[in-house]
Amino acid sequence: MTSLDDLPIRDDLRGLTPYGAPQRKVKVALNVNENSHGIPEDVAHDIVRGVAEAILTIHRYPDREFTDLRERLAGYLGHDLTAENIWAANGSNEVTQHVLQAFGGPGRSVLGFPPTYSMHSILSAATGTQWVEGARDPGFEISPETVVREIERTRTDLVFLCAPNNPTGTGMSLETIEAAYDATDGIVFVDEAYAEFMPTGTPSALTLLEGRPRLVVSRTMSKAFAFAGARVGYLAADPAVTDALRLVRLPYHLSAITQAAAIAALGHATEMLAMVDDIKAQRDRLLVELPRLGYSPWPSQANFVLFAGVADPHRTWQDLLDQDVLIRDLGIPNSLRVSAGTEAETTAFLAALSGTDGALPAQN
Amino acid sequence: MTSLDDLPIRDDLRGLTPYGAPQRKVKVALNVNENSHGIPEDVAHDIVRGVAEAILTIHRYPDREFTDLRERLAGYLGHDLTAENIWAANGSNEVTQHVLQAFGGPGRSVLGFPPTYSMHSILSAATGTQWVEGARDPGFEISPETVVREIERTRTDLVFLCAPNNPTGTGMSLETIEAAYDATDGIVFVDEAYAEFMPTGTPSALTLLEGRPRLVVSRTMSKAFAFAGARVGYLAADPAVTDALRLVRLPYHLSAITQAAAIAALGHATEMLAMVDDIKAQRDRLLVELPRLGYSPWPSQANFVLFAGVADPHRTWQDLLDQDVLIRDLGIPNSLRVSAGTEAETTAFLAALSGTDGALPAQN
Repeated sequence: MTSLDDLPIRDDLRGLTPYGAPQRKVKVALNVNENSHGIPEDVAHDIVRGVAEAILTIHRYPDREFTDLRERLAGYLGHDLTAENIWAANGSNEVTQHVLQAFGGPGRSVLGFPPTYSMHSILSAATGTQWVEGARDPGFEISPETVVREIERTRTDLVFLCAPNNPTGTGMSLETIEAAYDATDGIVFVDEAYAEFMPTGTPSALTLLEGRPRLVVSRTMSKAFAFAGARVGYLAADPAVTDALRLVRLPYHLSAITQAAAIAALGHATEMLAMVDDIKAQRDRLLVELPRLGYSPWPSQANFVLFAGVADPHRTWQDLLDQDVLIRDLGIPNSLRVSAGTEAETTAFLAALSGTDGALPAQN
Repeated sequence: MTSLDDLPIRDDLRGLTPYGAPQRKVKVALNVNENSHGIPEDVAHDIVRGVAEAILTIHRYPDREFTDLRERLAGYLGHDLTAENIWAANGSNEVTQHVLQAFGGPGRSVLGFPPTYSMHSILSAATGTQWVEGARDPGFEISPETVVREIERTRTDLVFLCAPNNPTGTGMSLETIEAAYDATDGIVFVDEAYAEFMPTGTPSALTLLEGRPRLVVSRTMSKAFAFAGARVGYLAADPAVTDALRLVRLPYHLSAITQAAAIAALGHATEMLAMVDDIKAQRDRLLVELPRLGYSPWPSQANFVLFAGVADPHRTWQDLLDQDVLIRDLGIPNSLRVSAGTEAETTAFLAALSGTDGALPAQN
């Protein structure tokens, strides 16, 4: 039998294993920050209606410019954005890849701040962009002074920020983003995948776009819109940025069905986002309950909580899985990450965790 | 206003314009080799049913391994292939990109034989793979001797063959593919996007897969399955090849909706492919009728015809567009390409063309 090593694959791929959270069928899946609430039935009907219409002309290539979708996304984001400011692709991973293909690539570098979304470094490597690591402040924060210091130290072509940050849940001030922008001549990419879960009134980096043509703010429909299975990520930026991305995208990268499904869902934004408050309530419940079980959750502005104080993360992860509850072990010492699910899922997780006896002994 | 040149884009992208056939609303669109026949109504209903079911769990990430879809595709292709032999992505462009990311990239090179599918060289450039041009025999053919000569001359890491070739329609013998495989230690990639339109009984490169782990045969649902809008390309190869592609694909690259739609369509393969014979009949009609109008079509095994003998291709293209018929000017001297559409579309094209007086004077 032929093995991978018998093939003429690129040297830098030899010995690697593919990315991916384990795919397991469990009763309570809180491992990949999905929105556990299904979508409302009337919205589902509307999506099916939109898709049915798209299928009537499915023998034709889709609108390469996905203009209707871009208009809908601009309307959803507000901030006086128009279709010209918007780009979309099959998940925010592909959006990020487009940005790296246009502004990164061989001979270029990107600054990131681990622990952060693991795909950022993977996509950098895949596009030949050197991934350079910056240091965070204690508590996973990044102050304006810190971001400027790390940018001046590393002088990369792009700066990747994740706000709120995955997997820590840490928020980021607009002052930090502004300071980063002023400190670099490169692209500042702010991944706001979890923005809808920020505390009410927290401003988005979208408010900084005006007059900052090198600032890019990415979003996704996977989380707040409960659309992980549909693969719709997008970004807002100066129209010149979306022009640049047109040079690297695959033609017709967004199917007519994806466009139709997303357009239908965006027509129900208020209804779709009604779940967000429930999820935030469950996140806040985790922040209250985890200390009662002896763990130390980090403050979170996202739909998940990273908690420290776990004596043996792999053992606790397995103990939970044995109880049909799947969470995420990201290799951060003494820590695990759990998504905020429905009320019932959160209850099930807390009950299972309280039976594991997995907390570190209290320190004095 | 910020322009693209004000941004820190990669130097190799400066001055480029995005790929793309013009998107125009016309009555008779025969420019991008779509399948003009819509899909049958009962198949459409089944697809909508499949999509509706997928939407019930759309808040969850899709099956990253798209196992059901791979099984269906293997079943459709036959030749004792199983799911392990199959890879799929959002259109054959993304499939090709995955192959180039795994086996090409910076420092590597790929041999292609222009005129051929223009995305092959574009994707090579986008992945940093050097595109090297080989010479065809007269009449756009590639004999076994020619392919070996060009491989030995260029010594590239990959060899791209397109069979039948776009935009010329030229077929390719299995002997040429076998000779290419034996002459290189690299990957031999055969793009069979138009395979279903080959004359009945013409063998596919799929018959050569057994025992050739470096051979990759790509297909698409865009053409024969009338699924251009759904973006489903795929390939068959040794399981070690699909393992390699797992290292470079974006996680969850195929949406749950795309998977469901394709699975439903594949369940009706016989019905979907019934249109193929009609299209082949219209292609053969073009091959008979174009000479009567003074043009010289090349033999075609695909769903389009490249015809020479056009005095001024751009003028004739515009004359046809003025009559609401859109075909393709690919910059090949004195030549245009037309897709084989429905009988009515072919009739409309031939009628419009006969009014243009665009043929070169007959030569003696």
